[in-house]
Amino acid sequence: MKVAIIGGGAVGMLVAAYFNKANINSVIYTRRREQAQFLHEKGLELIKNGMTTTSKVMALPFSEGLLEDADFIFITVKQYDLDPILDYLKKNKIKIPIVFLQNGMSHTLMISDLYSESIYLGIVEHGVLKQSDNCVIHTGEGRLKIANYSGEPGKIIAISDALNSIGFPIIIEENWYEILAGKLVVNAVINPLTTLYGIRNGGLLENDFYFLNMRSVFLEVIQALALTNIDNLWNDVISICQNTGSNYSTMYKDIEQGRKTEIQSIIGYILEEGEKRMVPMPRLMFLYNSIKGMEAKGKEERND
Amino acid sequence: MKVAIIGGGAVGMLVAAYFNKANINSVIYTRRREQAQFLHEKGLELIKNGMTTTSKVMALPFSEGLLEDADFIFITVKQYDLDPILDYLKKNKIKIPIVFLQNGMSHTLMISDLYSESIYLGIVEHGVLKQSDNCVIHTGEGRLKIANYSGEPGKIIAISDALNSIGFPIIIEENWYEILAGKLVVNAVINPLTTLYGIRNGGLLENDFYFLNMRSVFLEVIQALALTNIDNLWNDVISICQNTGSNYSTMYKDIEQGRKTEIQSIIGYILEEGEKRMVPMPRLMFLYNSIKGMEAKGKEERND
Repeated sequence: MKVAIIGGGAVGMLVAAYFNKANINSVIYTRRREQAQFLHEKGLELIKNGMTTTSKVMALPFSEGLLEDADFIFITVKQYDLDPILDYLKKNKIKIPIVFLQNGMSHTLMISDLYSESIYLGIVEHGVLKQSDNCVIHTGEGRLKIANYSGEPGKIIAISDALNSIGFPIIIEENWYEILAGKLVVNAVINPLTTLYGIRNGGLLENDFYFLNMRSVFLEVIQALALTNIDNLWNDVISICQNTGSNYSTMYKDIEQGRKTEIQSIIGYILEEGEKRMVPMPRLMFLYNSIKGMEAKGKEERND
Repeated sequence: MKVAIIGGGAVGMLVAAYFNKANINSVIYTRRREQAQFLHEKGLELIKNGMTTTSKVMALPFSEGLLEDADFIFITVKQYDLDPILDYLKKNKIKIPIVFLQNGMSHTLMISDLYSESIYLGIVEHGVLKQSDNCVIHTGEGRLKIANYSGEPGKIIAISDALNSIGFPIIIEENWYEILAGKLVVNAVINPLTTLYGIRNGGLLENDFYFLNMRSVFLEVIQALALTNIDNLWNDVISICQNTGSNYSTMYKDIEQGRKTEIQSIIGYILEEGEKRMVPMPRLMFLYNSIKGMEAKGKEERND
C-alpha cells in the first residue's frame, strides 16, 4: 500500500505521520522544492502532548509530477490551491482513487470530470498546527470523516482499517454532502465572526451581542444551503465553540499573519448556493466583504 | 448676554472659548466638581494651529443647579448623559431658550415637554479634541448648524451675529430634521464601520470591499429614516470620509479608550425608526450588536 499525499501543510504532514505509524508508505508532494528537500533530509516530526516523534518520509516537489505507482491520493492543500492539481490530474487522466480533505465546498463543484475510479470527500476534525516545514503539532484529537463521492466505495477500507487500528480514527459516512455541509456551517459561523472581532472562538458565547450576531449569521447559512437539521447543526456550532474556546480560528490567524484566508471556499460558496435559491444573505455578504477587505488591507500593509 | 453651557467636554469648552472671544459671558456647568474648580483656577485653554490662547471662564458643577440669570442654555453633553439634565429642566420649569448640540437623534424624542420658550437643535461640524480638563484643541474648522425646533425662531440671532462676527460661523437652517438626519447618516455609516475594521475614516474609500459594505449600510439607513435626498447624503458621506481621511472616528476612539460609545443614539435610534416603518435592517442590527459587543468586551477587560 502506497499513498501520495499532495500538500505539505499541517493536514498533509499530520496524515503522513500517522500513515508512517500504520506502516503505510507515503510520499508527500509539496509546492516548494525546499520543503521537500527539508522533509527528506530532516525527517517528519510529530509533536503530541509535548512528545516529539521523528520518522523518515519521502517528499518530492509536486511540479515534477506524481509517481504513478500510488494506490491512493490524499489531497490536503487548501481549496484555493487546488486548481493546478486538478488540472494535472485531468490532463494526465490519473485513475488512482482520491480523498479530498478541504474546508468549504467549492471543490465539490470541480471534481466531477476527474478520471479517478473512486473519489472520496472528507473533513479533518483534528486540532493541528504547522510548526515548521518538517514539524506538525497535533493539538487536539479528532477524527477524519470520509464519504464516497463516486466510484467504488469500498476502496478506502484497507486504509481506514490500518489507521483505525493505530488510534487515528477514520469514520466512513454515507452522505458526503452532510459531512461537508456540517463543517461548512461551523466554519462559516465561527471563523469570520471571530476574525472580525479579533476574539478566541469561546468569545462568541461569552458576549451576548456577539452571540446574537452568531445566531443570525447561522440562520442565513441554513437558508442559503437549504439545510433542515437545524437544531443538530446549531448544537455542533455551540459545542465546537465551547471545545475550542481558547483557540483562535484559522481565519483569524491567517489575517493576523497576512495570509490568504479560506473566505472564498466558505462564505463565497454559500453566497453562490444561496443566490441559486434566491435567499437574501445581507449578513453573509457583509461578512464576505469584511474579510475580503481585511485580506486586501493586510496585503496593502505588507506592500508598504 | 449670558450663556449657560452645560457640559465640560470638547464641544462645551470649544463653544465657551469662542463665546469668550465674542465677549459673551458664559458659565460652563460640569458633571465633576473638580473639573469646574480646575477650569476656574487655570482658565480655559484653546489650542488652534499650535497656538494656545488662555481665557478666564466661570465654571460650576451642574449638581448645584443652574444660575437662573442666563439668557440662553447650550447643552453640549453626549446624548447618553442628557437624562438628568432634562429632568432638572422639567422639574424646575426652566423657561430659558435652549440649544441642543448632540450627535444622533434620540434626544429629539425627549424634549417636547420642556418649558423653554424656544428650543433649537444643532450639530457641530468642527474637528475638536479634549486635551485635558481645561484644554481643548480645535483641530478642524467647521460650522455650527442650528435650526429652530419650537418657540420663537429669532431668539438666537444676537448670539449667531456675535459668533459670526468673530469667525466662528453659525448657520441658521430651516429644517432641524434635515440637519440632524444628515449628520446622523454620516455618523451611522462611518463610525461603526471604521470602529469594526479598526481603520481611519479614509480607509473606507481605499478598500473596495469596505466601500461595498459602506454603501449597503448607507442604503439601509436611508430606508430606515425614509430620507429622499439620497445623492446629496451619499456625497456628504464620501466628502466627510475624504476630508477626515486621516482621522479615527470618535466611536473608534471611544472603544479604544474603553469608553461608552454613541451607538445607542446613532444606530439605536435608526433601528427604532426603521422598525416603525417595518424596514428590514440586517446590516444595521449586525453593526449595532457588533459595537455593543465591543463595548461589553472592553468593559469586561477593564474589570479583569
